[in-house]
Amino acid sequence: MVEDKAIAKLERLLPAGRISTHEVDRVTYSYDATGEKYMPAAVVFPETEGEVTEILAVASEFKIPVIPRGAGTGLSGGSVPVKAGLVVSTERMTQILDIDEEELLAVVEPGVVTGELHRAVEARGLFYPPDPASLDFCTIGGNIAENAGGLRAVKYGVTRDYVRALRFALPEGEVFSAGVRTVKGVVGYDLVTIMVGSEGTLGFITQATLKLLPKPETKITIAAYFASYVSAAKAVAGIIARKILPATLEFIDRQCLMCVKEATGMEFPEDAMALLLIEDDGFEEVVKRSASAIKEALASENALHIQEAGDAAAAEKLWKARRVISPSLAYIAPHKMNEDVTVPRKKLPELIAAVEGIASRYNVRCASFGHAGDGNIHVNFLYDKRNNDEVQRVKEAVKALMEVVVQLGGTISGEHGIGLAKKDYIGIEIGPEGIEIMKRIKNAFDPHGIMNPGKIFPDTLVG
Amino acid sequence: MVEDKAIAKLERLLPAGRISTHEVDRVTYSYDATGEKYMPAAVVFPETEGEVTEILAVASEFKIPVIPRGAGTGLSGGSVPVKAGLVVSTERMTQILDIDEEELLAVVEPGVVTGELHRAVEARGLFYPPDPASLDFCTIGGNIAENAGGLRAVKYGVTRDYVRALRFALPEGEVFSAGVRTVKGVVGYDLVTIMVGSEGTLGFITQATLKLLPKPETKITIAAYFASYVSAAKAVAGIIARKILPATLEFIDRQCLMCVKEATGMEFPEDAMALLLIEDDGFEEVVKRSASAIKEALASENALHIQEAGDAAAAEKLWKARRVISPSLAYIAPHKMNEDVTVPRKKLPELIAAVEGIASRYNVRCASFGHAGDGNIHVNFLYDKRNNDEVQRVKEAVKALMEVVVQLGGTISGEHGIGLAKKDYIGIEIGPEGIEIMKRIKNAFDPHGIMNPGKIFPDTLVG
Repeated sequence: MVEDKAIAKLERLLPAGRISTHEVDRVTYSYDATGEKYMPAAVVFPETEGEVTEILAVASEFKIPVIPRGAGTGLSGGSVPVKAGLVVSTERMTQILDIDEEELLAVVEPGVVTGELHRAVEARGLFYPPDPASLDFCTIGGNIAENAGGLRAVKYGVTRDYVRALRFALPEGEVFSAGVRTVKGVVGYDLVTIMVGSEGTLGFITQATLKLLPKPETKITIAAYFASYVSAAKAVAGIIARKILPATLEFIDRQCLMCVKEATGMEFPEDAMALLLIEDDGFEEVVKRSASAIKEALASENALHIQEAGDAAAAEKLWKARRVISPSLAYIAPHKMNEDVTVPRKKLPELIAAVEGIASRYNVRCASFGHAGDGNIHVNFLYDKRNNDEVQRVKEAVKALMEVVVQLGGTISGEHGIGLAKKDYIGIEIGPEGIEIMKRIKNAFDPHGIMNPGKIFPDTLVG
Repeated sequence: MVEDKAIAKLERLLPAGRISTHEVDRVTYSYDATGEKYMPAAVVFPETEGEVTEILAVASEFKIPVIPRGAGTGLSGGSVPVKAGLVVSTERMTQILDIDEEELLAVVEPGVVTGELHRAVEARGLFYPPDPASLDFCTIGGNIAENAGGLRAVKYGVTRDYVRALRFALPEGEVFSAGVRTVKGVVGYDLVTIMVGSEGTLGFITQATLKLLPKPETKITIAAYFASYVSAAKAVAGIIARKILPATLEFIDRQCLMCVKEATGMEFPEDAMALLLIEDDGFEEVVKRSASAIKEALASENALHIQEAGDAAAAEKLWKARRVISPSLAYIAPHKMNEDVTVPRKKLPELIAAVEGIASRYNVRCASFGHAGDGNIHVNFLYDKRNNDEVQRVKEAVKALMEVVVQLGGTISGEHGIGLAKKDYIGIEIGPEGIEIMKRIKNAFDPHGIMNPGKIFPDTLVG
């Protein structure tokens, strides 16, 4: 077997303990948060960039797949080894190499956990905004590979907006250093941003230089219930119309509230169809003005109940309903298809109406929540995998949802990526000429197709 | 001649008045702000995306160069037709198609003048931050092609940070729509950002969707003189250390002040070695706090003289010295080599010392000013083209500057691009493996090499 030869060669080249073919390791690294499972031939744990390049050079020599993997928290199957090969984990490349207070930069290895970076920079009065929900586990390398978003994207943007420079190993084992430490730079094509969101299909990120901001001085948290989705969506528009871009602007639908109630016993107003959770941050005086404009916007859309947290503990209480949604959905149904569709903010009422229509047409249960401020809604179709008919109906509902989203001028994935889960739908959004250019770019970086094969592009399009 | 055949075909295909081979037009479109001149075979003035695709399809059929051109204000020769062919001007594609207050977006044709977009969005309480110095003439298409920066980049970033989506014509005449209207999106590779800064070598931008911000409520302007470059540079660092990212943070050296004095009679403090000009914007209360932190940072580095403008007229007066630098330099010497090197902020003192050393070593006059806040300094070597020996010394000084900048962890072009002017130096910054990938990306978009040939890459590397 060609894979056995590659593994034997790596065992000779790498220090002891870097490569495992034990079944328990192969099983552990066979799946991610989507639950899809494919067994790799081996799992590799490089500790240095030099080891990464050796692994890639050997994989290239034997033409076997390399699947870069952070913490496996991805929701699109990006780190799942669909064509076996080597899962290459970044879990031993976890150093924060530099936090530069003068340049407002951090230099990190790919395996640094996002939440750890948050704490490290905040201890110095700095701020790294991207905050995917899995931030206590997920890694910067994975965040870059998937262009992770999060709750604060409405004001602060996504991972792409914070990557200044990257070092990455190319499939044939050279290391390339792209980008600069400065905000400005126009020297050839932007090879940093093409790597961001490329889902491990172009190269292996070995180091990232990230932009930081000064840490906001203070924060406010406001919650408001609405008797209809439309008035909640109008309140969102009303906040933006008041020229306020809050740090977070979360939407939770009645189905989610009901699931949370059923799972946890938490109580919500009887007639609440939607909950908005809003935070803003910055200088104290600004945040006060934001709070007053936000409350005005909420009241003018007849919010049922507006609460402002007086302190961090009260804020945490307001956030509790949001935090327990995912476990509550799992309590209600054993499986969920979690889509992260995104539409222009003003199309939210149309999206929500369309989701209701789809759920009813295909007779599936559906709960939606997410980032209303940036139009990114997590639509969860709930089902039981053992019910074949329900599985089929959910699949059809997902396809119908994707089509609606693109018709509304949106995108089929806001922050989870295409990976395995959505590759059959990419043609709904990207035309054949776009796919053709992307295939050529893929070939430019990875002529032998060893980097994370079987992702992003439908099998019929890329071999 | 193959070019004559292409022009004859275009004359048949396009409406009357779209193509000119008159010598006066060919001369007019033969150069840009660098002064480099090459005659095109014809100048084309498309009015619609459909016409652009027809032009590209014909150019592709006859394999003749297409040189996209905005207002020709570029400082790296990006729009100069070095290999003749068709200069395709965007000057009749000047519509602002949409300003969406709810989504904070503008949709524009490529020929929209940047300053006109500023005024149009500001009239609605919105804000488009990128502000290259040529904003009264330059176009959004050109800004995107060169990833233009400007004065406000230290706080707001550069053009790249504001391009959400692009429509562009590929060399063979298909139109591709890349990106989405939403802040989030991870669907395949990022073909928007690869186009930003690609200097017209990958495709022809026909429409751009730009991110806007709420317009800042107010602005402060502060000027301070320093008796040494080092104390000015330390004051810059001191401002950032106080967790203030001001909207602009401009540096002007003594040579510039002396040129301005000689050309205009303006007076400056006798012992001033450097002037810092600082603006911040935002909510009134925030700006007040910024102003006080900024003045504290200036005073703690022994600024000779600190002035704060009380109103817009006073601010304009403080800015006058900055605005007249370029004409003043022209008054002192007939030609200048204007480099826009960029280094990490904290390396500014080292850069300034190195520039002084280079100027003395090669016996050339040199005046520096620019965007200290983001480390982007415009180093101007002053000379007379008729003095061959001086021209040679300036060339050597430029090369020495580039080498120092890369050693300091900076970049050889912050905002002007590589174009024609810097293509021989790109190898100082980007290694052969990077150039190789960029060449492959170029081929992925433009297999026949018709898009703006002779730019970015040294002739020895790309045919």
